[in-house]
Amino acid sequence: MVSSREIRLKSRPSGVLGPEHFELATVDVPPPHDGDVQVRNLWMSVDPYMRPRMNDVKSYVPPFEVGKPLDGAAVGEVIASADPAFAPGDLVQNGLGWREVFNAPARVLRKLEARGLPPQVFLGVAGVPGFTAYVGLLKIAGLKEGDVVFVSAAAGAVGQVACQIAKAKGHKVIGSAGGAEKVAWLKEIGVDEVIDYKAESSIRQALARAAPDGIDVYFDNVGGAHLEAALTMSKNFGRFALCGAISEYNTTERSGGVRNLVIAVQRRLRLQGFIILDHYDELPQFTRDMREWIAGGRMKWKETVETGIENAPAALMKLFTGANLGKMLVKLA
Amino acid sequence: MVSSREIRLKSRPSGVLGPEHFELATVDVPPPHDGDVQVRNLWMSVDPYMRPRMNDVKSYVPPFEVGKPLDGAAVGEVIASADPAFAPGDLVQNGLGWREVFNAPARVLRKLEARGLPPQVFLGVAGVPGFTAYVGLLKIAGLKEGDVVFVSAAAGAVGQVACQIAKAKGHKVIGSAGGAEKVAWLKEIGVDEVIDYKAESSIRQALARAAPDGIDVYFDNVGGAHLEAALTMSKNFGRFALCGAISEYNTTERSGGVRNLVIAVQRRLRLQGFIILDHYDELPQFTRDMREWIAGGRMKWKETVETGIENAPAALMKLFTGANLGKMLVKLA
Repeated sequence: MVSSREIRLKSRPSGVLGPEHFELATVDVPPPHDGDVQVRNLWMSVDPYMRPRMNDVKSYVPPFEVGKPLDGAAVGEVIASADPAFAPGDLVQNGLGWREVFNAPARVLRKLEARGLPPQVFLGVAGVPGFTAYVGLLKIAGLKEGDVVFVSAAAGAVGQVACQIAKAKGHKVIGSAGGAEKVAWLKEIGVDEVIDYKAESSIRQALARAAPDGIDVYFDNVGGAHLEAALTMSKNFGRFALCGAISEYNTTERSGGVRNLVIAVQRRLRLQGFIILDHYDELPQFTRDMREWIAGGRMKWKETVETGIENAPAALMKLFTGANLGKMLVKLA
Repeated sequence: MVSSREIRLKSRPSGVLGPEHFELATVDVPPPHDGDVQVRNLWMSVDPYMRPRMNDVKSYVPPFEVGKPLDGAAVGEVIASADPAFAPGDLVQNGLGWREVFNAPARVLRKLEARGLPPQVFLGVAGVPGFTAYVGLLKIAGLKEGDVVFVSAAAGAVGQVACQIAKAKGHKVIGSAGGAEKVAWLKEIGVDEVIDYKAESSIRQALARAAPDGIDVYFDNVGGAHLEAALTMSKNFGRFALCGAISEYNTTERSGGVRNLVIAVQRRLRLQGFIILDHYDELPQFTRDMREWIAGGRMKWKETVETGIENAPAALMKLFTGANLGKMLVKLA
């Protein structure tokens, strides 16, 4: 028996997330049965979409259940195996984060070839956040020559990749983020115009200064005032990849709403929501492109790391105050 | 010299449109110069988009100018010609409504072959409103087999055509309109479920009853609460053709806004604005299809007619209270 700690959903939050919605439990994990593999998670991901999964609402993934452990992307090491495809020491990607050790059927694990990259990169630029930026920008928004690109939450896990893909392809990029540290980071990775939204009274006016001729593509991680500003500043035939709306996840009543969507008619805009579950056919190409960008020095990244599973709830909460620079991770072992 | 009356923009409205924003003037029209044609308008169109054109805002068409006559779609008869391509008695489509008689270069006129259809039909089902419904439904929303279709302002000029194209193609159609007369008309043209939004406390609940399994396509003429209801009831991968937002044109402050656009992410929706100026390559196919639908009894229409140019401002104002059934027209001669 191996002892493992896990984080469970204690109660469903209404509004702002707090420590009272989580509970830490310890379980014993028996040796793996036939066909199962035992994994010790090294790193787990916390992501904005986990907040809406705490509501009892049907979505593209089922809601978390009260009293059960949460789950999400993680990278772990095989410590025991009852399946011939895996051996102790193998590095595996899995969807069973929020726990230290688990047994799972071999088919739910994906072996990782690190090839010199640190394992947590597969939860960041080379993982779901990076793939999300890739699909949103290239496929959903249909990035094309000459496009001026605006990215919100630009210093976050997805945003930092979206900015750098656009820069690698030669575009003018405007990024929005909150605070001096994030602004400095975005300038370091070559973002042409950086908006510190916490220092601006009007995102719309800041965007008008940053992109006086307007924008062609908007990569939306935020919703709310950023989306309104992007609508106001969009050129004709603008394309918006709607990836998330973190500004709205922690509210009970949806805030003011998007008041200028009528602009989409006059300017023939296309707003398209997406989730990457639908786009896994693009994964091999993404993996090749991303390894090339990393090898060529075109892709840099920041991580914000909390240590110990007991700190995973706090790590998740910090996403909603923008306390993370780059990918927010929890180091478990 | 021929005497002609015209309606000019007297002042820019802020908020609700009133008679004080218009003025009736009389001008003398000289005989046409070389290359010009003199036309007496028989019918003119009033359309929702004319309201935002009264604001001093750049859009896909320039704003109306204070002190100048308004313009818009009209059908007229040539009464004198100094161009060999036109002769007195020819029926012509033109963009110089809001006036009785005018001279214009031959190139801005399009000769109409009525082929037994009354001339005002070319301002309705066989004109811009019909073409708008056709492009929005087939090209922008990409209507495909099995789609459940929701149309707002369904008994209006565009809506009545959208409903009937969808029915001609075998779809389940839900239409929303205000008042018993419109409801009866929509049932007469085969709309499966009709929502009388003026009699409902919640459009969302009414739509949930009409389409319990959700909708695939939304043809939006209205914005506001209808758009929110359509988002809530959309199936995954729903496509929204954003054609107009009449509920918002007469307001100074944009109303509450669309508060649930985040649904577009989870359900991977595509919302796309369009204006038919970009789609004239589809016009020949539209014309063939529409003549076939009319000949086959698959396309019916209603008109609401005001008589005399002096009543054109009132006709336009009535659009915003929903007083029109089908296409709103002004008969000038």
